[in-house]
Amino acid sequence: MQVGLIGLGKMGFNLGLNLMKHTHTVNAFDVNEQAVTNFKEQGGQGFTSMQEVVEALPTPRIVWLMVPSGDITKSTVAEITQYLEAGDILIDGGNSHYKESIAFAQQLKEEKGIHFMDIGTSGGTEGALNGACMMVGGDKEAFNHIEPFIKEICVEHGYVYAGEAGSGHFLKMIHNGIEYGMMQSIAEGFEVLEKSPYDFDYEQVAQVWNNGSVIRSWLMELTQNAFSKDSKLEGIRGVMNSSGEGKWTVETALELEAPVPVTTLALMMRYRSQEDDTFTGKVVAALRNEFGGHAVVKK
Amino acid sequence: MQVGLIGLGKMGFNLGLNLMKHTHTVNAFDVNEQAVTNFKEQGGQGFTSMQEVVEALPTPRIVWLMVPSGDITKSTVAEITQYLEAGDILIDGGNSHYKESIAFAQQLKEEKGIHFMDIGTSGGTEGALNGACMMVGGDKEAFNHIEPFIKEICVEHGYVYAGEAGSGHFLKMIHNGIEYGMMQSIAEGFEVLEKSPYDFDYEQVAQVWNNGSVIRSWLMELTQNAFSKDSKLEGIRGVMNSSGEGKWTVETALELEAPVPVTTLALMMRYRSQEDDTFTGKVVAALRNEFGGHAVVKK
Repeated sequence: MQVGLIGLGKMGFNLGLNLMKHTHTVNAFDVNEQAVTNFKEQGGQGFTSMQEVVEALPTPRIVWLMVPSGDITKSTVAEITQYLEAGDILIDGGNSHYKESIAFAQQLKEEKGIHFMDIGTSGGTEGALNGACMMVGGDKEAFNHIEPFIKEICVEHGYVYAGEAGSGHFLKMIHNGIEYGMMQSIAEGFEVLEKSPYDFDYEQVAQVWNNGSVIRSWLMELTQNAFSKDSKLEGIRGVMNSSGEGKWTVETALELEAPVPVTTLALMMRYRSQEDDTFTGKVVAALRNEFGGHAVVKK
Repeated sequence: MQVGLIGLGKMGFNLGLNLMKHTHTVNAFDVNEQAVTNFKEQGGQGFTSMQEVVEALPTPRIVWLMVPSGDITKSTVAEITQYLEAGDILIDGGNSHYKESIAFAQQLKEEKGIHFMDIGTSGGTEGALNGACMMVGGDKEAFNHIEPFIKEICVEHGYVYAGEAGSGHFLKMIHNGIEYGMMQSIAEGFEVLEKSPYDFDYEQVAQVWNNGSVIRSWLMELTQNAFSKDSKLEGIRGVMNSSGEGKWTVETALELEAPVPVTTLALMMRYRSQEDDTFTGKVVAALRNEFGGHAVVKK
């Protein structure tokens, strides 16, 4: 099968290699010319524009977008749909908001008869290369067409047809929300160990928790890896960035009025970690000083 | 090797079978005579008192307690130490508070020269039977003596010598605290799915999240199992009980002034789930009525 691939970042590049391992031809484009050159060196087909990628594909075309969510996804969809025709399948494999995917699916179907699929992808770059996890939303008919190679590039039982448009990205969003809470839970455990009177070897602790315990998990394996490289994580600061899906999970929960306190607090702790000092802290310190004369730490 | 086993509940019984599979002789006692009878039917040695168990063991004796934490552990330790001698090893494999283990270890060492080991055990009843996960605290010398059979009854890399007295139960306590947060995180994700406009198959969702995703974990496998038996969990109520280790984790965090907001909130959500109605709810409803005339739900 021939697949068009737009976006050769860490995920897209590996996904392209994964497709090629399964004997598919991958016609790729990226705004970064070096990425295209590297991809050609790995046996891929490289092109200098999206139009060329589309023109090189047999119909019905399958084009996979693996570009950053938001404006870049929007402009990429806007451009590439100029070259696509009715019956073609356009896959957004990035971390787009599910409502954008619903809107795209509806618009492209009505205006051009294009099948838009939203695929949430998990498993990191290693999974993209050797076996990913995919949550697929969109027309069932279009899904049936792409299922054979989705099955090949995912681990066994590692994909699901989630339902109508948006459902794939919805599931991926919730997956990431769960991830926030699980990561914060694991981290808080080690926070207590670090303040305890014992001198634990965190790599060993993570290892034993990965073997036979109730909390064994891929995230705990990554914890073990991290401590194996830096036993007390002394080389990094505890700044927890986020790329938006945790926020969307909480926003969605608010919209649905679903109580998700732990997920919300895990997100808030990320925001807290991004600040060296907080205005909250200043206000509370000032109030304690006002009512009780308690000392404040001066700047 | 010969081991004394006090307590043939779900965990103790299976641990006894596990030891016997590895050709050890297990001399067991439980206050429940039926459990002793059942254990004998499985090839174990059954006794009618703790004293008999101890008298049947060669020195230095190894006695494993697998009884409920708190008063029962205390009274069991108090009785059995009457029959033990200097050099014997007494293992508390239950979920005791680490401070009790520190106290026992110190007292038994000073008063009788008995080595007290605290072993936190994870992996559930299935793990106890086929390969557990153990966190061991206590004298290194005594650990060296029991390590050969600890290794046999645990999964590979599934045990750790955590350090001095109390450290095994401390690690197990933190393990359970992490478990609370992870479980609540997973559950909140499904909470949003349940309120979403999509009609997800939760067993399928849990399955795909178990294969290649970042949140794959034993807890997610158990989630998949649960949904395979009851696709919307319609047969049970959402009452989340707890047996104390999450509470101890939060208490310990408070004592150490370690911020663990997600673990704390996971615990608080358990308490909330145990009440049909809350006094908090009544107070807030009454206040909304007081200041804004907002309607209240009458009893």
